[in-house]
Amino acid sequence: MSQQFKKQLKEKSVDISEWYNDVVLKAELADYAPVKGCMVIRPYGYALWEAVQDYMNPLIKAKGIKNAYFPMFIPMSYLQKEKEHVKGFAPELAVVTVGGGEKLTEELAVRPTSETIMYEMYKNWTQSWRDLPVLMNQWCNIIRWEKRTYLFLRTTEFLWQEGHCAHLTQEENMEMVLWAMDMYKKTYKNLMALYGVAGVKSNSEKFAGGKKTYTFECLMPNGKSLQACTSHDLGQNFSKSIDWYVQDESGQKVNPYQNSWGFSTRSIGGLILAHGDDNGLVLPPSIAPIQVVIVPIPGHELAENLAQKVSDSLKKLYRVELDSDSTQTAGFKFNKWELKGVPIRLEIGNREAEKNQVVVFRRDSGVKETVPVDDLGRYIGQILENMQRTLYESHKKFTQENTHVVDSYDEFKKIMDTTRGFLSAHWCEDADCEATIKAETKATTRCLPLDSKEEQGKCIRCGKASTHRWLFGLSY
Amino acid sequence: MSQQFKKQLKEKSVDISEWYNDVVLKAELADYAPVKGCMVIRPYGYALWEAVQDYMNPLIKAKGIKNAYFPMFIPMSYLQKEKEHVKGFAPELAVVTVGGGEKLTEELAVRPTSETIMYEMYKNWTQSWRDLPVLMNQWCNIIRWEKRTYLFLRTTEFLWQEGHCAHLTQEENMEMVLWAMDMYKKTYKNLMALYGVAGVKSNSEKFAGGKKTYTFECLMPNGKSLQACTSHDLGQNFSKSIDWYVQDESGQKVNPYQNSWGFSTRSIGGLILAHGDDNGLVLPPSIAPIQVVIVPIPGHELAENLAQKVSDSLKKLYRVELDSDSTQTAGFKFNKWELKGVPIRLEIGNREAEKNQVVVFRRDSGVKETVPVDDLGRYIGQILENMQRTLYESHKKFTQENTHVVDSYDEFKKIMDTTRGFLSAHWCEDADCEATIKAETKATTRCLPLDSKEEQGKCIRCGKASTHRWLFGLSY
Repeated sequence: MSQQFKKQLKEKSVDISEWYNDVVLKAELADYAPVKGCMVIRPYGYALWEAVQDYMNPLIKAKGIKNAYFPMFIPMSYLQKEKEHVKGFAPELAVVTVGGGEKLTEELAVRPTSETIMYEMYKNWTQSWRDLPVLMNQWCNIIRWEKRTYLFLRTTEFLWQEGHCAHLTQEENMEMVLWAMDMYKKTYKNLMALYGVAGVKSNSEKFAGGKKTYTFECLMPNGKSLQACTSHDLGQNFSKSIDWYVQDESGQKVNPYQNSWGFSTRSIGGLILAHGDDNGLVLPPSIAPIQVVIVPIPGHELAENLAQKVSDSLKKLYRVELDSDSTQTAGFKFNKWELKGVPIRLEIGNREAEKNQVVVFRRDSGVKETVPVDDLGRYIGQILENMQRTLYESHKKFTQENTHVVDSYDEFKKIMDTTRGFLSAHWCEDADCEATIKAETKATTRCLPLDSKEEQGKCIRCGKASTHRWLFGLSY
Repeated sequence: MSQQFKKQLKEKSVDISEWYNDVVLKAELADYAPVKGCMVIRPYGYALWEAVQDYMNPLIKAKGIKNAYFPMFIPMSYLQKEKEHVKGFAPELAVVTVGGGEKLTEELAVRPTSETIMYEMYKNWTQSWRDLPVLMNQWCNIIRWEKRTYLFLRTTEFLWQEGHCAHLTQEENMEMVLWAMDMYKKTYKNLMALYGVAGVKSNSEKFAGGKKTYTFECLMPNGKSLQACTSHDLGQNFSKSIDWYVQDESGQKVNPYQNSWGFSTRSIGGLILAHGDDNGLVLPPSIAPIQVVIVPIPGHELAENLAQKVSDSLKKLYRVELDSDSTQTAGFKFNKWELKGVPIRLEIGNREAEKNQVVVFRRDSGVKETVPVDDLGRYIGQILENMQRTLYESHKKFTQENTHVVDSYDEFKKIMDTTRGFLSAHWCEDADCEATIKAETKATTRCLPLDSKEEQGKCIRCGKASTHRWLFGLSY
């Protein structure tokens, strides 16, 4: 990057929080909105969310789950039916008290999640086992009040998909809970090149009103853990709270077993944090709105002609942008597209054009190579494929290297004071002990990993018997 | 339809309002929500909206307009900056007064439309003519308070896209206003098989805060006119109200020229009303979530095998559903899929299977034909294409036959008392006269059609000189 430009961008290695805000704003992914806690998702950032939708929708539909849309306004009385649920969400609610110029007789919550409104409708639509399963999903906006905005990571309004299914048996229900986790894992890997650990939340960290929460935890470069998405086994908690029964095949009344699972724009925050560097964003090829940017040196006529030809041919294969703006220098453009994380840049001057070749710059490694035009299509395909894999492998390696198996509380505290990361430690599963660990170290239980093996041990803090290592970390 | 089933469905010809609600509920397009004025869009109805998105998004993107997302909460002070705008929308607002457990210092409107919040951001993002045009669109939910719910047609919450562009000149601005109208017209014709009249709204009917509103009016079977979508020339009204300037090429400060245009889930109401019949929905093939349903006669084994084979082969060409549920009779299924408006039904019994042929039932005409399996792919393609065109032509013919050129106020009133429809009449363009016509006949000005020719005449009510015929009608 030119010195001038470089100075303008904060350095990731110096202060990742400042770097993060700076990159999100300068790469024009998002901006602060006038309302506290809210954000504007600009086109370049929204294209990332569209890529998530395009990847996930076919998987959701292939599973037989159908998209629908439920109202954003939820009567307060609905939220109150599941006691734990309302306790968990009440502090975060935005409340509509006036509608059409009149004070409302019943105040309306703006949805912080849609369990309560959806299941009242499901109840109306089902009488017998023949009407199950109910398999629905919606893409929508969600409101959970926040005083401070962390762009993408924590905002009052965010976008997500929420899947809500109801089944006759707990077996079917659990199959769906885990199917969702698997779909999310695929999305993170294949689209965002992010590795993570799937596991079960502790009781104090689970979804308000649910039975069990499954989470996918991604480790960020600063050693903090991002809860990247969740899938909830709701059991019969909600169906019981609204007296929802169906008749099973033998004529018995059964409360349906339910699950809900969500993946939000928060994921984009993880994507930015994990892969970016001092020069800005690094976007994995699968999700990059622009995979290849072509920059002919301004004023080089031969180069400009070749750039147009190359662009026309590559557009059939990849998402390509030809930047032939004559008012900016080549150097300025190089910096701009690096900042925006475009995986591959093609540089073409007259010298290259005369030899019918281009310079190929790879964003993640910074490597430049000169490649004949005739070989370009195939060559770019290889780099994109390699870059997607390399970014994932590198994030996986980082996570594994920063996962510490810890057996002493002193060591636990020392790690939390320095590098942080994932701490794999025995815990007695007592909520008070969990709270003490948090108070003393800031570490929270992230999850009991799905692949955690039974192992006799002693709680890292209190020394009581424990059968499994839990993953601890500092929450984002 | 079986007598039992037929009795359950209201007849369109007897009471179109009752028929409409009945069809929307029974075809499982939508349902009433617990909150007054709100609706739930069920999967079969939401699939229609997804088809609109899939059709429109490529057209929007090809025009260089990018999708983005702006906050749903708008500070009241923003809405108040354009005086006409707030006057128009204040009576319909839902207002958030409590957030995160605290009374807010500034109340927040839930967006009734997004001009004010978007343009404040545009202002921050632009300094010079180089930053124009700004070309953005968003798909989102909108709140305009309603006391009574007409499913799809008038609900407190609805879904739409809203395009918002800003330009350096009024010429570019108008080009976009009309481009949007043209895109909408294509969507109605090619997707929904609906004909309509494009024109300009009168001053009293235009968008609050805009300069000129272009509308697309569709005539419904009961002679009422549906304002099917709008495109607004906002001129410089909004940019002036927020002191938004950019420098033009000569260094002069210019307020950008703006346009906004929206197409909502209301369109689905028009689709249902226009094409449906006493047996239920009739969906044009382009938008039908299921284009072909295959019903083997339950218990006919040969037929069931053939149905599976036919289904596998047709799925490569069309959106196909194989209904092999053994718990319902063939007659029940025929009625169900007619109610749901599926364009083509294939009936297969053992008799047909033995001859390797199927019965093809066409939903709009009710015609049944026996067709050899080998010829089925081609044959179905022809019917679908023909049905799309026929439905459009039939709606166009209906509209033209019910467009009355009227030159006497008595005749005008008589038509409004009986068949209604579009009334093409001279009007002096005086707002008081317009209000009197409405009070006396219930007719409102629908638009000045874009293809209206200059013609000397006298106002239908007051007799003053008039230069154009306007279209009048009863608003939906």
